[in-house]
Amino acid sequence: MVEERRFKQTMNEIGRIGGTDRGMKRLAYSREERQATDYFITQCKAAGLSVRIDAAGNVIARRPGTCPELPAVGIGSHLDTVYEGGKYDGTIGVLAALEIVRDLNDRHIRTKHSIDLFAFACEESARFGFSQIGSKAMAGLIKQKDIASLTDKEGQNIQSVFADRGLEFSRLEEARLPKHALAAFMEMHIEQGPILEAKNTPIGVVRGIAAPTRFNICVKGHAAHSGSTPMNQRQDALIGAAEITIELEKEARREMEHGTVATVGDIEIVPGAMNVVPGETHLKVDIRGISRASKDRVVEFLYTFLDHLRATRHLEIGCTLLSDEIPVRMNADIIASIEKVCRWKKIKFIRMPSGAGHDTMNMAALCPVGMIFVPSIGGISHHPDEHTDLHDIMTGIEVLEAAVLERAVVESETKAGAQNTQ
Amino acid sequence: MVEERRFKQTMNEIGRIGGTDRGMKRLAYSREERQATDYFITQCKAAGLSVRIDAAGNVIARRPGTCPELPAVGIGSHLDTVYEGGKYDGTIGVLAALEIVRDLNDRHIRTKHSIDLFAFACEESARFGFSQIGSKAMAGLIKQKDIASLTDKEGQNIQSVFADRGLEFSRLEEARLPKHALAAFMEMHIEQGPILEAKNTPIGVVRGIAAPTRFNICVKGHAAHSGSTPMNQRQDALIGAAEITIELEKEARREMEHGTVATVGDIEIVPGAMNVVPGETHLKVDIRGISRASKDRVVEFLYTFLDHLRATRHLEIGCTLLSDEIPVRMNADIIASIEKVCRWKKIKFIRMPSGAGHDTMNMAALCPVGMIFVPSIGGISHHPDEHTDLHDIMTGIEVLEAAVLERAVVESETKAGAQNTQ
Repeated sequence: MVEERRFKQTMNEIGRIGGTDRGMKRLAYSREERQATDYFITQCKAAGLSVRIDAAGNVIARRPGTCPELPAVGIGSHLDTVYEGGKYDGTIGVLAALEIVRDLNDRHIRTKHSIDLFAFACEESARFGFSQIGSKAMAGLIKQKDIASLTDKEGQNIQSVFADRGLEFSRLEEARLPKHALAAFMEMHIEQGPILEAKNTPIGVVRGIAAPTRFNICVKGHAAHSGSTPMNQRQDALIGAAEITIELEKEARREMEHGTVATVGDIEIVPGAMNVVPGETHLKVDIRGISRASKDRVVEFLYTFLDHLRATRHLEIGCTLLSDEIPVRMNADIIASIEKVCRWKKIKFIRMPSGAGHDTMNMAALCPVGMIFVPSIGGISHHPDEHTDLHDIMTGIEVLEAAVLERAVVESETKAGAQNTQ
Repeated sequence: MVEERRFKQTMNEIGRIGGTDRGMKRLAYSREERQATDYFITQCKAAGLSVRIDAAGNVIARRPGTCPELPAVGIGSHLDTVYEGGKYDGTIGVLAALEIVRDLNDRHIRTKHSIDLFAFACEESARFGFSQIGSKAMAGLIKQKDIASLTDKEGQNIQSVFADRGLEFSRLEEARLPKHALAAFMEMHIEQGPILEAKNTPIGVVRGIAAPTRFNICVKGHAAHSGSTPMNQRQDALIGAAEITIELEKEARREMEHGTVATVGDIEIVPGAMNVVPGETHLKVDIRGISRASKDRVVEFLYTFLDHLRATRHLEIGCTLLSDEIPVRMNADIIASIEKVCRWKKIKFIRMPSGAGHDTMNMAALCPVGMIFVPSIGGISHHPDEHTDLHDIMTGIEVLEAAVLERAVVESETKAGAQNTQ
């Protein structure tokens, strides 16, 4: 049985590293993140695992299988946080992996496949404005040149940060795992949204991870006196921006069954005064979905609507595509396997999309992947108030362990024991 | 006949005072405004007028009538400008009054009523965030305490500014004119809007001056992750703000025949980031109209719509009324008289509202008032590019002169001469 008390103690111990008055601060490649990975490494070694740190700073701890020629089954997440972050995002996924290994040790369960625990480096974009450096390097999705010029808010370049951390930036690409190194990868993470709590459901089985398509839109009209310009002679850039905001919301609602979302996160207004009809506005638009077709429909709608606005409101509209990533679907067999475990254990679950990005997205380039979400109270994340009930975390670990064991294949002589605990 | 060359020269001379690389800068009660009023006083004295400066800094220059017991007919505007202002706003109204007196002198026309020329102090709110101090003091609409604590951007208090200008702030209320001092007041001003140019019409006969009703509206929703928060579980404060913007525009368009306008001039978004559903927005709302009933309908609509938003979008909405002024109608006889002059001289005109505020608004508390607008090229004002064709200004002066003479009553012995020139 996974042990709630032991898990809680580990959470408490790691929660002291980088704790501040205003939440957690364990920025990527920082001293605090290093302390956290050191703590994790110590615990892994104590659990009998062999540990290595790759060229990107990822920690990989192996529990060898009985058939070492088979690809390993991976589990894990990340230990870095945003500025003023919470204790759960990333961390519970890494410690869940550790707890599973501890439990297997306690129960003397051997698996055919090795089990690899991952603590990925730099999952959060908080420090360098670039996310998932560790898992992207591991999956071969980035090269040195893609990130060589990144600097943090203090002006520190990532290459010198690597050096301070004892990593050689020039060897980054060596972090790439061989194509058949992994049989599967699974991650448990907090939902960072309100759905599970609202539905009083402990487990979310992730269908896919949404990828953002992002735009900067500039709407130009004509600044004019708010008193002396009749309504029908205005070219009000804010009216254009407001219509984009409203219509995009309507269109995303039409795609709701596919889990697509669209957000105008900011509008800057020029000049922005009580007595001036706005002459210019700048919008930040973020469209995400796990269905590429659905997301593409919303993007297409946006382009068409901008044309309509240009024609009807006589506004000049510039639209700059900032990024256009492709959604990642979770492996159907892994989804089925997680759901089977839930049914068998009579644990409530729902299938859901992940709106936020995760390391699993990149691991999908290497092997079949799956994700389990546990509820975020109030949907809050990236904030000191971030919270997930311990009970829900333990339920998540139980489900994850069973799904991992199914992939890692329990040796027949201990199988009965394993089933008892499930 | 009013003289284009003379008028142009006077415009050029005064245009050098406060001229900068970025337009005109003759802030209220500044050294530059003082230079401009000194220039005006010199010209008035040269035209034989008796000049006084009242306690608020207004310049009043009298051309005595033949029946000094009759109330005077007033004409004028202001000489102060905004930061980076134009050469026309206010100035053409003061110089038009001067040109009319010069013309009457040339033609030896005497009037029964005295004609008073006004150069009002501090019409623009640019310096102290408070407009029309001169005309408000003259009309008894402000008291010392209402403005005693005003300071400019450099932190200079209005009382010390008055002292520097040689004015005694403690005597401000002495600027108030007695109730029957004036028989009428008329002002010529640039339109500051696009209507006259669009309609290729030199004269706008002002029906009324719109008064603003202004609000700060705060919409509070719930900041959330833009990826992981489904469309139907959001409380997006920007969606609320966008709906207010759109619906207010629609409602103002329904009131267009009454000249009512509504503007959301600014929206501030908190936190305002690409990946966050906006949690809070602050809107600046400006509603103006010359029909109180029409403006009230728009304000009532706004209140009702905010209730609707609170109920349907589950947003918390605060609405602070900043000002609620009453529109001022121009005197019907003066409107009729100006229009009669236009028909007689075969000058195209339209009747129109003034969206911006003017000194005439305050003079309405003292006597019947009227206003003439001349076209603003491109609708531009409060900007170095502000421009009105000289030809249009001369047409305006001609109309204004005829309307003034009708009120001031030409002495019978010179009447024939006056009619020849009309």
